[in-house]
Amino acid sequence: MSSPEPAAGARAAAEPGAHLLAEIREQPQALRSLLEHEREYARVAATARDRGATTVRMVGHGSSDNAAAYGVYAFGLLPGWTALRDSITLSVYYGAEIEMAGSTAIALSQSGRTIDVVDYLGRARSTGAFTVALTNEPASNLAGEAEAVLPLGAGTERSVAATKTYLNQVAALGLLAAHAAGEGRRFAESLRVVSGQMEDLIPRLEQLVPPIAVAFTFVGRMFVIGRGPEFATAREIALKLLETCRIAAEPLTATDLAHGPVAALDALFPVWTIASADASLAAVVEAAERVRDAGATIVASGNAADAIPGASYLLPTPKPPSALHAPLLSVVPGQLFAWALARAKGLDPDRPEGLAKVTLAR
Amino acid sequence: MSSPEPAAGARAAAEPGAHLLAEIREQPQALRSLLEHEREYARVAATARDRGATTVRMVGHGSSDNAAAYGVYAFGLLPGWTALRDSITLSVYYGAEIEMAGSTAIALSQSGRTIDVVDYLGRARSTGAFTVALTNEPASNLAGEAEAVLPLGAGTERSVAATKTYLNQVAALGLLAAHAAGEGRRFAESLRVVSGQMEDLIPRLEQLVPPIAVAFTFVGRMFVIGRGPEFATAREIALKLLETCRIAAEPLTATDLAHGPVAALDALFPVWTIASADASLAAVVEAAERVRDAGATIVASGNAADAIPGASYLLPTPKPPSALHAPLLSVVPGQLFAWALARAKGLDPDRPEGLAKVTLAR
Repeated sequence: MSSPEPAAGARAAAEPGAHLLAEIREQPQALRSLLEHEREYARVAATARDRGATTVRMVGHGSSDNAAAYGVYAFGLLPGWTALRDSITLSVYYGAEIEMAGSTAIALSQSGRTIDVVDYLGRARSTGAFTVALTNEPASNLAGEAEAVLPLGAGTERSVAATKTYLNQVAALGLLAAHAAGEGRRFAESLRVVSGQMEDLIPRLEQLVPPIAVAFTFVGRMFVIGRGPEFATAREIALKLLETCRIAAEPLTATDLAHGPVAALDALFPVWTIASADASLAAVVEAAERVRDAGATIVASGNAADAIPGASYLLPTPKPPSALHAPLLSVVPGQLFAWALARAKGLDPDRPEGLAKVTLAR
Repeated sequence: MSSPEPAAGARAAAEPGAHLLAEIREQPQALRSLLEHEREYARVAATARDRGATTVRMVGHGSSDNAAAYGVYAFGLLPGWTALRDSITLSVYYGAEIEMAGSTAIALSQSGRTIDVVDYLGRARSTGAFTVALTNEPASNLAGEAEAVLPLGAGTERSVAATKTYLNQVAALGLLAAHAAGEGRRFAESLRVVSGQMEDLIPRLEQLVPPIAVAFTFVGRMFVIGRGPEFATAREIALKLLETCRIAAEPLTATDLAHGPVAALDALFPVWTIASADASLAAVVEAAERVRDAGATIVASGNAADAIPGASYLLPTPKPPSALHAPLLSVVPGQLFAWALARAKGLDPDRPEGLAKVTLAR
């Protein structure tokens, strides 16, 4: 019999941000699902090595492009390969003819339907690249265009703001890079550890974050600072704040900040700093000192959040088995902050103004 | 005899923004000075070709990094080489060991004294790269570290906000890429034409820009949109607005805008759009339509500014001999806008808060 009351699931989904929160919570499971495909990652890494395709060209838009920023470090640090966020515009719109023998081209698209990403991959293949699709949809056009398909295993994502897809893209690039370096097994084991750490972290942050986020209800602009592998995290947190909370949040490296933008700071221009215990920490601390001297409020997150001088708000994350796993945990405070702040502002983070889940066009 | 009145030169320099304006005006001459070094550019391009060093790794901070974003397109479109803004952090801070035989590493530094850029170049050389310093100071540490030195010829720059140095970095990367493609002579001739176009443009913009800029006195945040070679221009204009006018200005490609940030726009969040008559124009127009639909005010500049629908302010620039020369002209409205707006806000664009001309540290 039908009932006038909506079912519990439908009621939950109708609440603003319900999809986003549910998908943030699904992330530990999403990571474990990725690991079910580990053999495919090992195989693609072996093919890239055998073909000498050691220049890695990554393309994607939005969160996918942010994940690619992590790939630059994963491939640089693990197999010592040159990886770049390639320009889609250069080959697709301007028709540049770039020799891609010796390259692995990795297209990142949740839906596998982003037209210019599909187009890019076709051109990459025709100029000699080994082409790989990293997607949630192994039956998509993108997968059809590629020589190899790596399933993301993140499952259906309903919120427009990506969370578990981004997380699995980062993990997938790390796993592929680790297999290329002959360290795939260890990296995968650490992913399993991170999944467990995240199980504990999420409920803790769900309590900690909302009362902090509410203080940012009238903030119009922010910088988000990260360095090395955490620059991807800075980009992703800034994008969440932009698209769900309508804050003009710009991601910067610690070095970028010193070369100009620091001059714009004042007490109404808060800065989110991601601090991980690795070789870049000293530079991040130095940048935070300049931020503090400019009178700006600091939010510090990451596993070395407590090393940031003068932070008003601390959102610490656990220390993972290796520095390259840190971005998987340090993005979570930003995701929950965006969710909580959007709600505080009366916005629906599942359906930001003027955005669709799948962007087909250019 | 000494006089209680300061000399005319000293008086001019004391006026806020006097250096910046003087250096903007010197740009046509700076371009011609670069051309005096054309043979050195031809020689370095020939060496890169002979050594098969056709992956171009560019490093620099701030405006230098913005110019490198242009280099990606110049090398991609002219000789068809892969060019990337390489990560200094990856090799200098994390010690990644990346094989660089087959690479030309170009370090961009006005002063030649930026420590981590010098350090990067040393590492690049030791792993097999052909190392090139692009600098105003051929006697600097950076030049000493490099196998080849390309003089920028921009002359001393006294304003903290770079203008003529950025312009000549863009022109220099274009000239080098053109020589690598065997088209150096033609590119150089076109630079001479652009220098003449700029002579006419600057006084015209000095009249046109200030009354427009004053309307932005209380603007806190902006996006600056450009695509292809004009993404470098978007980055550079955004940086000028940040460092001299304290506006949270974020550079985005037309595509980036659609993948999230468009959701943040409203009537108090203006967007500067750079429109050039090339293969990317349709995508830029489409992005501008979304901006207009979001109710945001549009400033349109570039040689196709009049193609932007619903722009409230037009700052057109002349059409240069080739699309790759357009960024040299389209940056000028942004430079003069930053100069005029800083003055309207009572700021001194020659000495932004907390910035030094030479950033030695990380």
